[in-house]
Amino acid sequence: MVERAPSLVCGIDLGGTKILGVVIDATAPSGSAVDNFGIIASKRVPTPHDGQETLIATLAALVADLTAAVQDASGGEIGAVGLGAPGLVDRDGVLHTGPNLPGIEDCPFSDRLGSATGLPVAVDNDATCAAWAEHELGRFGGHNHTLFLTLGTGIGAGITVKGQLLRGANGYAGEPGHMVLDPNGPPCPCGRRGCWERYASGSGLARLARDAAHAGRAPGLVELAGGDPEAVRGEHVTTAASRGAPGALEIMAEFGWWVALGIANLVAVLDSEVVIIGGGLVEAGSVVMDPIRAAFGDVLFGARARPAIPVEQASMGEFAGAIGAALLAAQRLR
Amino acid sequence: MVERAPSLVCGIDLGGTKILGVVIDATAPSGSAVDNFGIIASKRVPTPHDGQETLIATLAALVADLTAAVQDASGGEIGAVGLGAPGLVDRDGVLHTGPNLPGIEDCPFSDRLGSATGLPVAVDNDATCAAWAEHELGRFGGHNHTLFLTLGTGIGAGITVKGQLLRGANGYAGEPGHMVLDPNGPPCPCGRRGCWERYASGSGLARLARDAAHAGRAPGLVELAGGDPEAVRGEHVTTAASRGAPGALEIMAEFGWWVALGIANLVAVLDSEVVIIGGGLVEAGSVVMDPIRAAFGDVLFGARARPAIPVEQASMGEFAGAIGAALLAAQRLR
Repeated sequence: MVERAPSLVCGIDLGGTKILGVVIDATAPSGSAVDNFGIIASKRVPTPHDGQETLIATLAALVADLTAAVQDASGGEIGAVGLGAPGLVDRDGVLHTGPNLPGIEDCPFSDRLGSATGLPVAVDNDATCAAWAEHELGRFGGHNHTLFLTLGTGIGAGITVKGQLLRGANGYAGEPGHMVLDPNGPPCPCGRRGCWERYASGSGLARLARDAAHAGRAPGLVELAGGDPEAVRGEHVTTAASRGAPGALEIMAEFGWWVALGIANLVAVLDSEVVIIGGGLVEAGSVVMDPIRAAFGDVLFGARARPAIPVEQASMGEFAGAIGAALLAAQRLR
Repeated sequence: MVERAPSLVCGIDLGGTKILGVVIDATAPSGSAVDNFGIIASKRVPTPHDGQETLIATLAALVADLTAAVQDASGGEIGAVGLGAPGLVDRDGVLHTGPNLPGIEDCPFSDRLGSATGLPVAVDNDATCAAWAEHELGRFGGHNHTLFLTLGTGIGAGITVKGQLLRGANGYAGEPGHMVLDPNGPPCPCGRRGCWERYASGSGLARLARDAAHAGRAPGLVELAGGDPEAVRGEHVTTAASRGAPGALEIMAEFGWWVALGIANLVAVLDSEVVIIGGGLVEAGSVVMDPIRAAFGDVLFGARARPAIPVEQASMGEFAGAIGAALLAAQRLR
């Protein structure tokens, strides 16, 4: 009997509402030429909010299920696990601050999930994972100086410098959602005011929309939300804007301006050559992307001196985070 | 006769009001152990504001004078020139936007000064040069992830990632003075509003002080400025604050808060391990540095999860830019 090298890697994207796991063959030829990014098995489970023990057990059960699935399919063995977690993840795989995982703080995911699964586990920030997947396999990847953003409940980011991930001193680089863009702006759960994600995330869009609804500037929106201005959410705005509702289009223009302003701040510091935007919000497509692009040229410092900086929609969809976690685990644990 | 290797390098710091040139021995043992950072000769001339031709001629004359000086002193030859210029300098040594050098735009310094001197010329952003000198020779240098700022008329920056300069796609990285921190803030010459350097530079301090003076909150300051609130400048505030004048101390606290806010934005993105602040303004010492440090802990995102980030005063003084330009030229033209 020939022993198989454990070339399969499990990647997990841990979100505030769901956990998505995939298995890929890290030795397979990479690139978008591979069908479905080379995913061999995948599974989705809801995120439990019942403390650290339950969360680790849920993650370990997901790895066990995926192990069984690939054994059935190919007889292969999973050799490592990569986990993308929302928040500040240090170089030892400890999640320090994760506002979307209440009750989970200073959690040594790498050690705990390693013990629970018997596999080496590499942990990274979730947006860093998605950025790496887009860099390695996505349609707009491969650049040296990339700014990747995810617009979801908050704002995540992954940055490449000379083709490598910018991790910083502790592994915490790339948290621009908490750049302050207006010290007199709305309060942020982080304790300060006017953080970028108060404007330029899904929850930021909902806030802009509710303000417009209360001011009577978005009658169609309030209807979509069942008549209550307080019930207006981000997807009501993108839906109404897709139908051409003027109030919603104005809100999307305001939203796009805030997204562009933060990108301009980042490009002034990083001198990126391409900006890639992922996350649930941009699934709506041009109704989100066009206002961002329209505002970006106006707010970018030194635009005249720079080659044009394309602002592209991420190409890998919801699997990017889990695939990136697997790719990074394969790299780090090789 | 033994031919000497051209190990001497000329470094020039081109400022809005003065030009400072030095010659160092790039093969000499480096480090602060060397007296006066190993400067063999230095010269200062005023910056001409009479167009590109005059500026190039002035720079070439400075190189000629320094060449003569080192020949007299040691018989050595200058083998290369490094120039630090204020603004966006691309990888070909062209200065694209330099607000402190009116009339100088899209100037190919590398080619023009190379022709005029017959020497290879490397051009970098001035703050990048100063950052590199502090990194290589300064008291707080040697870290992998450094954020270096110069607070002068505007704000300059140099960033190291894994011990190397962050240059970005075009060489334009590190222009955080034009991060927008308040879209409703005071207008900036760059065409936008509320850029960081409207608050956290020497001219930003003067603006905060004039506002306080007009509001009657800084009587001592107006006296120092000869009785005219419009004549209040940054150094009047630091002088008055050094003497303990309450109005001036309040202005310095406000100024320190704005400096700290921008640093916090940058650390959220870069995850720096040390912040080094240079430029004319910090020559005043603790009266500037203490309010920055006091505010920084409050405004830093994720402060609880991070090791303490020291905020230090640059140690090399006014020669940092010229020395850094020489060091970078020696590296790039080796």
